[in-house]
Amino acid sequence: MKDEAELTAAMLPRGFEWGAVRAGIKASGKTDLAVAVAREAKAGAVGAAMFTGNRVVAAPVTVGRRHLLSTGGRVSVVLVNAGNANCATGEPGVAGCVATCVAAAESFGCIFDEVLPSSTGIIGVPFPTEKVVAAMTELKASVGSSAEHAESFARAIMTTDMRVKMAHAVVAVAASQSAGRGVEPRGEAASAREVRIWGAAKGAGMIHPRLGAPVDPPHATMLVYLFTDVKAAAAELNSALAAAVEPSFNSISIDGDTSTNDTVLLLASGASGVRLSKELVPAFDAALNEVCQSLARQIVADGEGAGHVVTLDVHGAATAAEAKLVAKAIAHSPLCKTAWSSADPNWGRLLAAAGYSGASFEAERVRIWIGEEPVFEYGVRATGFDEAKAHAAMLEREYTIRIDLGAGKGECRFLTCDLTAEYVRINADYST
Amino acid sequence: MKDEAELTAAMLPRGFEWGAVRAGIKASGKTDLAVAVAREAKAGAVGAAMFTGNRVVAAPVTVGRRHLLSTGGRVSVVLVNAGNANCATGEPGVAGCVATCVAAAESFGCIFDEVLPSSTGIIGVPFPTEKVVAAMTELKASVGSSAEHAESFARAIMTTDMRVKMAHAVVAVAASQSAGRGVEPRGEAASAREVRIWGAAKGAGMIHPRLGAPVDPPHATMLVYLFTDVKAAAAELNSALAAAVEPSFNSISIDGDTSTNDTVLLLASGASGVRLSKELVPAFDAALNEVCQSLARQIVADGEGAGHVVTLDVHGAATAAEAKLVAKAIAHSPLCKTAWSSADPNWGRLLAAAGYSGASFEAERVRIWIGEEPVFEYGVRATGFDEAKAHAAMLEREYTIRIDLGAGKGECRFLTCDLTAEYVRINADYST
Repeated sequence: MKDEAELTAAMLPRGFEWGAVRAGIKASGKTDLAVAVAREAKAGAVGAAMFTGNRVVAAPVTVGRRHLLSTGGRVSVVLVNAGNANCATGEPGVAGCVATCVAAAESFGCIFDEVLPSSTGIIGVPFPTEKVVAAMTELKASVGSSAEHAESFARAIMTTDMRVKMAHAVVAVAASQSAGRGVEPRGEAASAREVRIWGAAKGAGMIHPRLGAPVDPPHATMLVYLFTDVKAAAAELNSALAAAVEPSFNSISIDGDTSTNDTVLLLASGASGVRLSKELVPAFDAALNEVCQSLARQIVADGEGAGHVVTLDVHGAATAAEAKLVAKAIAHSPLCKTAWSSADPNWGRLLAAAGYSGASFEAERVRIWIGEEPVFEYGVRATGFDEAKAHAAMLEREYTIRIDLGAGKGECRFLTCDLTAEYVRINADYST
Repeated sequence: MKDEAELTAAMLPRGFEWGAVRAGIKASGKTDLAVAVAREAKAGAVGAAMFTGNRVVAAPVTVGRRHLLSTGGRVSVVLVNAGNANCATGEPGVAGCVATCVAAAESFGCIFDEVLPSSTGIIGVPFPTEKVVAAMTELKASVGSSAEHAESFARAIMTTDMRVKMAHAVVAVAASQSAGRGVEPRGEAASAREVRIWGAAKGAGMIHPRLGAPVDPPHATMLVYLFTDVKAAAAELNSALAAAVEPSFNSISIDGDTSTNDTVLLLASGASGVRLSKELVPAFDAALNEVCQSLARQIVADGEGAGHVVTLDVHGAATAAEAKLVAKAIAHSPLCKTAWSSADPNWGRLLAAAGYSGASFEAERVRIWIGEEPVFEYGVRATGFDEAKAHAAMLEREYTIRIDLGAGKGECRFLTCDLTAEYVRINADYST
């Protein structure tokens, strides 16, 4: 996986097309309506989705959940707009969302419930249904399967993002696995003996995903679309996605605000001709994990106003859940996050946050490192504590804070960023 | 209660003396060592205390808790330093704290466990025991019972506070109550027929107290000392204090960071000659509540970098606990708090925070007001929503956000403030 490498068509899963246009929703006038289409629209792709646990419901999540249920996970078109979250817009918002799905279904030749809608942007402003519907012809004309097409999709879904976020991986398939029949399928090109995964994400603020099965819907600020050409059933994709989301999107936080529309969608076209067999699952899961972790890291690295990406490596907790409690308390602590912004090795704030996290431990057994520098050991400042060295470690754009709670074997790895005056500026100016 | 009025000796509870000196702990060179003494040091005062639930233990809290247990709540001297929290300082920190108690006991003529120590300031820096001990003679010479003496105490405990925080109340005592004997006590001056309460507090950052009984100790950033001249037993004071702390200090947040040393101490000298009789309890509780709520409001109003004090009035929750979940989620949401800093009526962020708070409600039943302006009603933007009016309401230094969840009868009132670039500046510069 090389998320920094330039995207080429050879990295893109077969069976999909992407496109984007300017529908006039973003005040900036940039592209703001994106589409991904399963090339065989009639057959559709197989989809698995996870949504945030937020109780407040954005219209596209209500509608999207309903569609996934009614089709059993079949998705032909993904329709995403940026600039308006279509959240807290009541029945008119839901009706508007349905109207855009109907328009997209007509345009792309599928049934309306095979359209999966997504929205991101401001909450509570009436949804500009007519702008989306009016852009549909142009949107259809924009699609294609080149790298430029895929990137146009990734770019149109951005809001406060500074960088476009994409990642890909390839799973090499042994001849014996390629069709699950032990023989090399006849007539297939060499490129068919691989499974490709490509994903695009947006998100820079209101980032603290707590994704679960599509139980309760969510104003999406984190949107992730994963495409693969493996051949799989919805249940298989759901289980792969649930496992991949936990150490990636569910282990990052920018500001601790869980959005109302966080959505992660995994679509499989089957166009590789390769079945997600039992033998292929470990390699596929590993590749999907890589893509998810790359996108999650890119989201944090592009965090609103962020100057530093901090990995919290918590171990020695009583349980994995308690390790996560500690990581989240630190990741959400304004005092820890502001100290990081000035590379201030104020480890007392880390310890204090761990102390109120709810995890059980004794300070006398705790050890903390910033980068490679020990800063706290067994109840007191580390003997070798060198403030200048710890400060130097924190001047790096990315570094790790390691905490051993000395209370058990639970551990977690969590990605977050610092809190800067620039974050305040960005969010104080958002809607006015 | 007039916390803005100039302090006079007639407002101060009888039976106490206060003082403060420069011990050289604060880098600024300001007064940093304060003392409160029960005038009849031999008899001492009766004390009730509450500490934070943070698992990480500051030495003065460990020691103070031990002292309260061993004396059954008798306190002769309160010794407070600012500039060093004596937290995460291990055994040397505890030994240093004990040494300062021993020095204070010698100086003021009591037993060492009748000294209640407190510290506030940076965590993890070795405690300057010798500076505190060396200042003891001068500290003893500084005490007195004038308004200036009391204010010198309140001023010396400040760290990042911009304003000194004090509040007082007087409970008028009917003749029939004054000695619990139904007759006016002979020879007592008219002023003896009142009970006085005066309190001083410090705290501007790391403010999200979660105070409980002195079970688990806390680096105190919020310190509150309440003095009264009523005559009461420790158990009576503890129950009055627990009730007063819940709607005041336990219902405020500046940054959501719960400190490791939060401490609230209530000391009763008995010098009014008035017993805290059953008849007096309601009036005393009301007065104590007023003082606590005034100090809590002063703490939020002085929040680091804060430009606005926002009262969150949450009602219609399924339970009072769920109302508090919603208030805390909003009070800790960087997106809500940054919007307040620019008077941005972005109510979608309020709704989103309520949505991830864990409280159970349906967005379709929720109503939200900013000041008197309805902004959200039953799932959509309020019909009468006037962005300019809501913006104007938010330009006030203090205003209320009211949320009716439509899910029950639980309610709470919670005080918090906005998040500004100035908060980031203050806390990014703290220790470097």
